Amino acid sequence: MAIRISTRQPDFEARFAALLATKREVSEEVDAAVAEIIADVRARGDAALIDLSARFDRVDLAHLGIAVTQAEIDAAEAAVDGPTRAALEFARDRIEAYHRRQKPADERYVDSLGVELGHRWTAIEAVGLYVPGGTASYPSSVLMNAVPAKVAGVPRVVMVVPAPNGEINPLVLVAARLAGVDEIYRVGGAQAIAALAYGTETIRPVAKIVGPGNAYVACAKRRVFGTVGIDMVAGPSEVLVVADGDNDPAWVAADLLAQAEHDAAAQSILITDDVVFATSVEREVARQLETLPRADVAGASWRDYGATIVVRNLGEAPALINRIAPEHLELAVDQPDELLVLVRNAGAVFLGRYTPEAIGDYVGGSNHVLPTARSARFSSGLTVLEFVKRTSILRCDVDSLRALGGAAMALARAEGLEAHGRSVGIRLNL
Amino acid sequence: MAIRISTRQPDFEARFAALLATKREVSEEVDAAVAEIIADVRARGDAALIDLSARFDRVDLAHLGIAVTQAEIDAAEAAVDGPTRAALEFARDRIEAYHRRQKPADERYVDSLGVELGHRWTAIEAVGLYVPGGTASYPSSVLMNAVPAKVAGVPRVVMVVPAPNGEINPLVLVAARLAGVDEIYRVGGAQAIAALAYGTETIRPVAKIVGPGNAYVACAKRRVFGTVGIDMVAGPSEVLVVADGDNDPAWVAADLLAQAEHDAAAQSILITDDVVFATSVEREVARQLETLPRADVAGASWRDYGATIVVRNLGEAPALINRIAPEHLELAVDQPDELLVLVRNAGAVFLGRYTPEAIGDYVGGSNHVLPTARSARFSSGLTVLEFVKRTSILRCDVDSLRALGGAAMALARAEGLEAHGRSVGIRLNL
Repeated sequence: MAIRISTRQPDFEARFAALLATKREVSEEVDAAVAEIIADVRARGDAALIDLSARFDRVDLAHLGIAVTQAEIDAAEAAVDGPTRAALEFARDRIEAYHRRQKPADERYVDSLGVELGHRWTAIEAVGLYVPGGTASYPSSVLMNAVPAKVAGVPRVVMVVPAPNGEINPLVLVAARLAGVDEIYRVGGAQAIAALAYGTETIRPVAKIVGPGNAYVACAKRRVFGTVGIDMVAGPSEVLVVADGDNDPAWVAADLLAQAEHDAAAQSILITDDVVFATSVEREVARQLETLPRADVAGASWRDYGATIVVRNLGEAPALINRIAPEHLELAVDQPDELLVLVRNAGAVFLGRYTPEAIGDYVGGSNHVLPTARSARFSSGLTVLEFVKRTSILRCDVDSLRALGGAAMALARAEGLEAHGRSVGIRLNL
Repeated sequence: MAIRISTRQPDFEARFAALLATKREVSEEVDAAVAEIIADVRARGDAALIDLSARFDRVDLAHLGIAVTQAEIDAAEAAVDGPTRAALEFARDRIEAYHRRQKPADERYVDSLGVELGHRWTAIEAVGLYVPGGTASYPSSVLMNAVPAKVAGVPRVVMVVPAPNGEINPLVLVAARLAGVDEIYRVGGAQAIAALAYGTETIRPVAKIVGPGNAYVACAKRRVFGTVGIDMVAGPSEVLVVADGDNDPAWVAADLLAQAEHDAAAQSILITDDVVFATSVEREVARQLETLPRADVAGASWRDYGATIVVRNLGEAPALINRIAPEHLELAVDQPDELLVLVRNAGAVFLGRYTPEAIGDYVGGSNHVLPTARSARFSSGLTVLEFVKRTSILRCDVDSLRALGGAAMALARAEGLEAHGRSVGIRLNL
């Protein structure tokens, strides 16, 4: 059973701080194993991928091939029913439309001293997308990562996905094709990250790696960071629902369970100003769990990490929201914008009573890759910006260099960097 | 003496690849020491800062105080001469003007299905800025990090700077005041990073830490990442100058040496299509080194990591530039924009013969915190975006939820996430 705390309790601050401090991830000690795997892939390339995939995924890549063929993707398409394919296309189109608006603009201008300034954005030349295997192999995640990369203009998007016992979720292959993924390889784990970072005979290296993965994948991404770029390392998912007593408890309970069913380490929190409603929601959670296919997972998450926070009034909510810094925030009230303006820290906000978080997971159009574990205090969800980089531009002529030169030389010399000063002075006969 | 290679050499590709693969940083094994320091600061707070500062910086913070006082900053201001102060203000104003243009815009719109979408940007609530002590204690770096944070709207910018033997560069304090830094503490090393991440009695924790530092600082930043955000870990600085034979060899040599004087591990590379010019530049480098105060540093950098690449024609340059992915790129030709459009990977570009890189270090207005070690392939220099984060917004009403709901439920069920589907269906009586 989830905990219940209330701002009326004299020890509320201690209880709330304990809730914030809850660790939901067991950090596995995989560093040594990952270092060995990466070294093996760097030394032996494809041969290492074949051996490691046989060991970890029980798949014979020497026979099947490392690359997934177009014929295999065709076969996957044939295996997907029409409505599901249409839903994937609908999601792809909406994600693309939303992310197109994020493309940053170049700029060039001349300032009052005659200095030309500006910047250019360019797409990263090659991006690797890690897709987990097994039950966490979500086609929606393929769309959420690959579509923004393609919108950014990345010419080469490379997907890696493990094929345990030779199998890949056909929906993942179809989503990859719909998103415009250029190459697909059936490797997973730290070995796939190593292959993307350093290249093998079959897999050319990329410049950045994105996408979720298990402890081995996360550790490998940290290790290759610097050689390539990486995205954030995502933790278990979480939702914070702020709801007044005018909501249907069953709707709110459904939203809490939608988050909880992801992972036993997921977290669902309810903030409400209505203690009777809080009890109704808790009862509804128990009731809906009875018929939920993933009741074991969702039940464990709710029992171990679920929480209800009863506040005196919803004016107390923003301060709590900002300290929790939730990945997903639902504001299930009549005037959600009044609360929204006070929200600083949240990955995504879902406004009103008719916007369950699951809409954002699939077809809202916004991205479902969002900051977890309170990192919305300092980071953002996935956008097109993740796939571009910026070059700043500066241009002086002799007159504008003269206008800037004295100050530059003064600062260079104040910092003891004489050659810096000389590189300016020599052009101005100073 | 720097190496010289040429695209006419039959083994050019191997030589160029070797140049790219050159490691310029010795990775010190400091991880265990850093872990211990962080644990000590978390356990003992200020007392640990006092003990560690006594040991590493030979300074008695129990007596001096951890916080730098306004009176001390006043004294620093009195110690700085007028022209240097004016140069700092000039730099501050130009950096501020350039970065104001980077503030990203919020957006809200309703799409054709009636779904409201958008995003909001908010400033990070508190940012820590690490400033190295000793010779690398640059006031220009204080401006380059703190001004964008303040432009972003960060309400609390906290600077930490070690005070070896009790001393802090007065220019650093003046730059901090000019940039609007809110708090300054005289602690450095891994202990300063730990204090910023976890807080002590005197230093409240921040949400993100930026700024350059030594191996201990870099290691500590990696370790606290997750608890707080961090910026990129910067390596030794580098410049690539592309110059035709119409340049004054002395100007180009001065630019190469300006980079080399930063650090014995800095790297200066010249690409030219004129072999006679290449020789003239090499001679000029040797001649200018004779009178350079930091000749030991600059000479070692040029000897160990300097390189001249002679190309058949400058049309060969862009492919080489993009593989080098330099932090700084000078295009010292008559029509630099013709090359610029072909440049994908560079932190900052300096156009034409009158834009020495040093202008960008101080008063150009653009940021001098730029991606090193080939990371311009996947990352960008410091901008206002480093200090804000984005919250995405989604809002449906019953009609737009109905328009999206079927596809969302189809995808949820295809992914085996029944509770996701239910959270949509329950609102639509499906």
